[in-house]
Amino acid sequence: MKAKRSARLVDMTRYLMENPNTVVPLTFFANRYDSAKSSISEDLTILRKTFMETGTGVLETIPGAAGGSMFMPGIQKQEASQFIDEVQSALADNSRVLPGGYVYMNDLLNRPSILRQIGRIIATLYSDKKIDAVLTVATKGIPVAQSVATLLNVPFVIARHDSRITDGSTISVNYISGSQKRIEKMVLSKRSLPANSNVLIVDDFLRGGGSADGLCSLIKEFDSEVAGIAFVAERDYEGQRKISEDDYTSLFKIDTNNGDIKVDLGNFTYDNFSDITKEEE
Amino acid sequence: MKAKRSARLVDMTRYLMENPNTVVPLTFFANRYDSAKSSISEDLTILRKTFMETGTGVLETIPGAAGGSMFMPGIQKQEASQFIDEVQSALADNSRVLPGGYVYMNDLLNRPSILRQIGRIIATLYSDKKIDAVLTVATKGIPVAQSVATLLNVPFVIARHDSRITDGSTISVNYISGSQKRIEKMVLSKRSLPANSNVLIVDDFLRGGGSADGLCSLIKEFDSEVAGIAFVAERDYEGQRKISEDDYTSLFKIDTNNGDIKVDLGNFTYDNFSDITKEEE
Repeated sequence: MKAKRSARLVDMTRYLMENPNTVVPLTFFANRYDSAKSSISEDLTILRKTFMETGTGVLETIPGAAGGSMFMPGIQKQEASQFIDEVQSALADNSRVLPGGYVYMNDLLNRPSILRQIGRIIATLYSDKKIDAVLTVATKGIPVAQSVATLLNVPFVIARHDSRITDGSTISVNYISGSQKRIEKMVLSKRSLPANSNVLIVDDFLRGGGSADGLCSLIKEFDSEVAGIAFVAERDYEGQRKISEDDYTSLFKIDTNNGDIKVDLGNFTYDNFSDITKEEE
Repeated sequence: MKAKRSARLVDMTRYLMENPNTVVPLTFFANRYDSAKSSISEDLTILRKTFMETGTGVLETIPGAAGGSMFMPGIQKQEASQFIDEVQSALADNSRVLPGGYVYMNDLLNRPSILRQIGRIIATLYSDKKIDAVLTVATKGIPVAQSVATLLNVPFVIARHDSRITDGSTISVNYISGSQKRIEKMVLSKRSLPANSNVLIVDDFLRGGGSADGLCSLIKEFDSEVAGIAFVAERDYEGQRKISEDDYTSLFKIDTNNGDIKVDLGNFTYDNFSDITKEEE
């Protein structure tokens, strides 16, 4: 279609948001809108500035023959911090405390609008890492993992405690559950992760760290590397965890002593978050 | 921020895409951009036309005091049909056939770009229904359910075969597995679905229909209604299914006789899909 600037801006925004972390050549847009490359360049400048000012993310220019524009979704410090405050208040509700000190979070982690913001925050926390896949273990971690994977535009891979016939051939590892001291098994479909992948582990809740440790072992079995480990929340934990505090990030820290819930911020920092609201002139 | 038209178009596109099926008052945008309502109305006309021409979805105008604009994501017939053809080719690969006639689809259903298109298609198939929640059963259906729920901007709810302590109180139903004639159990957290919800069931694969039938029973136990049942694929099935063909839609029909895979289109139709590419003048 021969498109006017206004239509191009709308459609380019849509296209880049639906295809994040992908280099889109200038010629793709020039052909799509039957427009001169110089006009497309001007459009991209408008998008870049607006994305920056609204904290939507960064629109990078990749130079060279294989170059183009790449949209990396993110979230600014101010929006992230306001969202974290809101979720912290929503979590701090004693009716969430379940027997054994577990915490009910399903009502938050099943809402697309909340998952998108958590995904933007975790993507920003790991924005300086190369990530080829997101890995989680069934079931509760899947929605968060999918949200992060959608923003990073990489496959997400689901390990299970029991293998199903629909997995095909699998690789399994045993690990010791950190909180319950039991030997458990975790399996992953052989076809689901290519060798030499950089893998971000994402899960909803950290207790003893046994599952995360098992996922790290699985990644090694696939000749791949752990790029990071992210949790929505961690529980106040007595004793030695299976993973070190330096190796993971959590958004919240939850303590449920005596049936009273106390929600603090987790160990993440805002180091990777920008708070620039205007492009430098 | 006082924003120019170009910046408004970019940010409004972003905002509406991230908040689908939500009425956004004109005053929200007027305040956000410090602009006159008449300018915002003109912006929305540009968005509406571009969304229609590119098949992004429909931008409806809701009149009245509580009115505003509502973006309903969809997909045009042409784009949907091209995508369906591509997935059909990708599925028609004998190396996908697993023992027992099962089919490996994880590599497709773990890619955000594929899940988004499947979500747009299922959302369009049910665009004439009121849907308050999407329901699936762990594990394989979750990614598809989440993709549909994200586009519809409604919560998605995950039933399980085994209840976990983090579910809190649950309601359970027994059902007969259609393909294996076993009595199975399915549980859903009591807090996860309010009464009188209209619920769309989404799953990856239909065999005997036992799981879907169990999910329908669960919905009744929650004093709610089944708005529809959608599968990515159904298997060629001999014998009586637990659900009727009139009650579900499938995108693909897969036959795996003798280790050879044959992939046909499922029972869905393009009735709800528009193929208008230009707004009527």
